[in-house]
Amino acid sequence: MKGNEVPRVPGFSAAGVHCGIKDGAPDLALIASRGPAAAAGVFTRSTLVGAPVELSRERVASGRARAVVINSGVANVAMGDRGRRDALKMTEWVARALGCPVDQVLVASTGVIGEPLPMGALSRGIPDAVDALSDRGLADAAEAIQTTDTFTKIATHRIRLGRRFVTVAGIAKGSGMIEPDMATMLSFLLTDASASPGYLRGVLRRVVDRTFNRVSVDGEGSTSDTALLLAGGEAEASRLTSRRQPGAEAFEEAVGIVAESLARDLARDGEGATKLVTVDVTGAHSSRDANTAARRIANSMLVKTAVFGGDPNWGRILQTVGAGRIALDPTRVQVRLGGITVFRRGASAGPAARRKAAVRLQADSVRIELDLGSGRHRARIWTCDLSYEYVRINAEYTT
Amino acid sequence: MKGNEVPRVPGFSAAGVHCGIKDGAPDLALIASRGPAAAAGVFTRSTLVGAPVELSRERVASGRARAVVINSGVANVAMGDRGRRDALKMTEWVARALGCPVDQVLVASTGVIGEPLPMGALSRGIPDAVDALSDRGLADAAEAIQTTDTFTKIATHRIRLGRRFVTVAGIAKGSGMIEPDMATMLSFLLTDASASPGYLRGVLRRVVDRTFNRVSVDGEGSTSDTALLLAGGEAEASRLTSRRQPGAEAFEEAVGIVAESLARDLARDGEGATKLVTVDVTGAHSSRDANTAARRIANSMLVKTAVFGGDPNWGRILQTVGAGRIALDPTRVQVRLGGITVFRRGASAGPAARRKAAVRLQADSVRIELDLGSGRHRARIWTCDLSYEYVRINAEYTT
Repeated sequence: MKGNEVPRVPGFSAAGVHCGIKDGAPDLALIASRGPAAAAGVFTRSTLVGAPVELSRERVASGRARAVVINSGVANVAMGDRGRRDALKMTEWVARALGCPVDQVLVASTGVIGEPLPMGALSRGIPDAVDALSDRGLADAAEAIQTTDTFTKIATHRIRLGRRFVTVAGIAKGSGMIEPDMATMLSFLLTDASASPGYLRGVLRRVVDRTFNRVSVDGEGSTSDTALLLAGGEAEASRLTSRRQPGAEAFEEAVGIVAESLARDLARDGEGATKLVTVDVTGAHSSRDANTAARRIANSMLVKTAVFGGDPNWGRILQTVGAGRIALDPTRVQVRLGGITVFRRGASAGPAARRKAAVRLQADSVRIELDLGSGRHRARIWTCDLSYEYVRINAEYTT
Repeated sequence: MKGNEVPRVPGFSAAGVHCGIKDGAPDLALIASRGPAAAAGVFTRSTLVGAPVELSRERVASGRARAVVINSGVANVAMGDRGRRDALKMTEWVARALGCPVDQVLVASTGVIGEPLPMGALSRGIPDAVDALSDRGLADAAEAIQTTDTFTKIATHRIRLGRRFVTVAGIAKGSGMIEPDMATMLSFLLTDASASPGYLRGVLRRVVDRTFNRVSVDGEGSTSDTALLLAGGEAEASRLTSRRQPGAEAFEEAVGIVAESLARDLARDGEGATKLVTVDVTGAHSSRDANTAARRIANSMLVKTAVFGGDPNWGRILQTVGAGRIALDPTRVQVRLGGITVFRRGASAGPAARRKAAVRLQADSVRIELDLGSGRHRARIWTCDLSYEYVRINAEYTT
C-alpha cells in the first residue's frame, strides 16, 4: 500500500480498534455493509478447524452477509462447545449493535489455539468498533487483523463495468501460513459491484486457487484460513450472475489483481523472510507434476536456505524435484535463477553464469524457473527464503 | 561407537584413506570380502540418480559381491555418459587390484553434484586403499564416507546361530538426508553369516523400511542413497535361505538392531541438530494416516523450531496433522511431550504440565507422542530439531 491512499469501497465501512486481547496493539476489526451484501467464502481444508470457521462456513452458504468481525491474538480453536458459544456471542453483539440479523454476521479469529477468547474485552470492544466504523477504516481493519505480520496488506483496483466504475479492495494477513502461533491466512475482499452469490462463489474459488493457494511460506496449513468476498452493489452497475456476461471477465480479473497483490505480500512477509521468491515450473508432463515440483521447490528447506544465502544452487532444486518422484531427464531440464540459466542439457552452465546468478539472488524479489522439457503444463508458487529470523521467531516464541 | 572396540567381521577387511578429493580429510573407503559374498541392495527412489547408483543397482541384482568402493566429496550425479564411464573405471581399478571379476565390485559416491570425479586422485587412491585393507579397518572406512557428519556411525551386534556365533556390523553416513550438498544416506552392513541373496534381499528391504526409511531430517531424498548388506559366510553357520528357518528371526533382528542404531545416529547428527527427536503416532485409523501424521510432525519446520526452543507447543503438532487432512477429533486426541501429557480430551493439560514438559524438552533426546484415539495403527519417525546452525550450514555452504 503506497502513501496515504486509503481504499474506499462505496457502501462499506470498516474499523480497527484495541480491545485488550493483545498488549496495546489493535486486535479487533469490523467490516460492515450498508445493506445485505452478496457473499462467498473459501475456508481452510484442514481437518482441525476453529469454531469461527465452522460458523462462518455455515452462514456464508446463504449467500448474504452484512458484517464480518475479526479478532487477532486468540484463534478460538480446539475449545470445544465453549468455542462455538463464544463465536456465536461475538456475532450476536455485532448484530445487536448494527441492528441486523445475526445470521448475516460472519466471524474470523486468528492467534494462539487452545486458549479461551477474552469475552469481557470483546463485549466492550465490539461496540467501540461499531462506533469507529468509517468509510476510510479499511487500513485500520488491516492493521487490527495482523499477528506476526510486519506490514499491513491492502490492495485495490478499479474497473469500468458498462457505464459505471466499480472498485475491488482487499485486506489480508498471513505470515507463516500457519496458525497455532498467530499466522493464519485471512483475506477480506470487498466490491461495490452487484453480483449473485452463486457467481461470486465461482469467482472466489477460481481466484483463490491461483493466488492465495499459490503461496507457501513453510508448507503448513492453518486451522483458521478464511477468504471472503462481499459484493454490496452500491455502484449500481448491472448485476453479474454468470461468467459469460459482459464485464464478468473484467470483474474476475480485477478480483484476481487485488488477490494476487495480497498473495505476493503474504509471501514477501513470510516469517523471517528477506526475499519474495517466485517459483515457475514449466514443461511438465502433467498439471500434477508441475504443481508437485513447484511446491517441493517452494517448501524445500535446502532451496530456501540457499536463496537466503544467495547461493545459485541448481543441485538442490533438481534434487528435491527428483525426490518428489517426478519424471526428470537432466538432459532436457533447464534451471534459471534470477533470469540466468545455471543448468541446461544435463550440465552446469559454468562458473560465470553461477557468479551472475549469485548477484541476481541478492535482489529482494527473485525468480526460480525450472523447465522440465517434457510437456506443456506449468505451475507457479510464491514463497520466501528461510533465514535465521524464521528460526528465532519460531523457537523463541512462547505463548 | 564406544571406546576402542573396532568391530570386526571375519572374512571382511576395510580401509579409509585420503586420496585428494577433499582437503586433507579421508575421502575414499574400500570394503572387501575374502570370497564372493551374498549381497543385497536398496537404493534411492528419487527419479534423479547418480551413475554409481545405476551401476550398483545393476550389479547387485546378481546377488554376489566381492568389494564396495566409496568416495566422498563428489557425488558423480548429473554428469551424463562421463559419470557412467567414471563409475565403471573406479570399479575396474578395484577389480584389478583385488584380482576379482569387475561385476562383483559395487560403488557409491557422495558429495556435490554436477561436478566430475577427480579420476587422477582416485586412480592413485584406490591402490592405496587396497594396500591399507585391514580386518580392523571399518572405523577408517566409516570416517572416509563422511561429508557434513559430525561423528562416525558404527554399530555391531553378535548373535548365536545354532552352534556358531555370527557378527553383524555396519557403518553409515547421513547428515541432511539430502544430496546436493554432501549429505547422502549411505550404509554398508556386513555379516559373517551365510545366506542366499534372495533371503538377504527380503531382510534388507524389511529392515530398511523400519529403520533408515524412518529417518527424516528435512524431508528431502538424495540422488545417491544406498544401503548394502553383504554376507560372507565365514562363521560357517548354517546357510539362511528362508524367513521360516531356525535362526532366521534372530538374524533379521540382529540386522535390525545394527540398522536402528545407525538410523538413530543419522537423526541425531542431522545438520545443525541439537536433539534426537522420536515421533510416535498411535491410535490411527489406518497405517497411511499413522505414517502421514508422523512424517508431517517430523518434517514440520514449526514443530522442529519449537523443539529447538524447548517450547511444549502441542498446537503446532495438531495443526500440521490437521493440515495433512488426517481425520482428527480433538476430544479423543492426546499429545505427550517428553512423557508429559500436554493435551487431552480437547484441551490443554494446563500450565503445570506445560512447565514440566518444557523441562523434559531440554534433554538431548526427546519424544513426541500423538495418540489419535481412533484406531490401532501406529508409526514411528526419527528426526531432529531445526536450529540456527541448520540455516548457517545450508545458507553459507558454497560449492
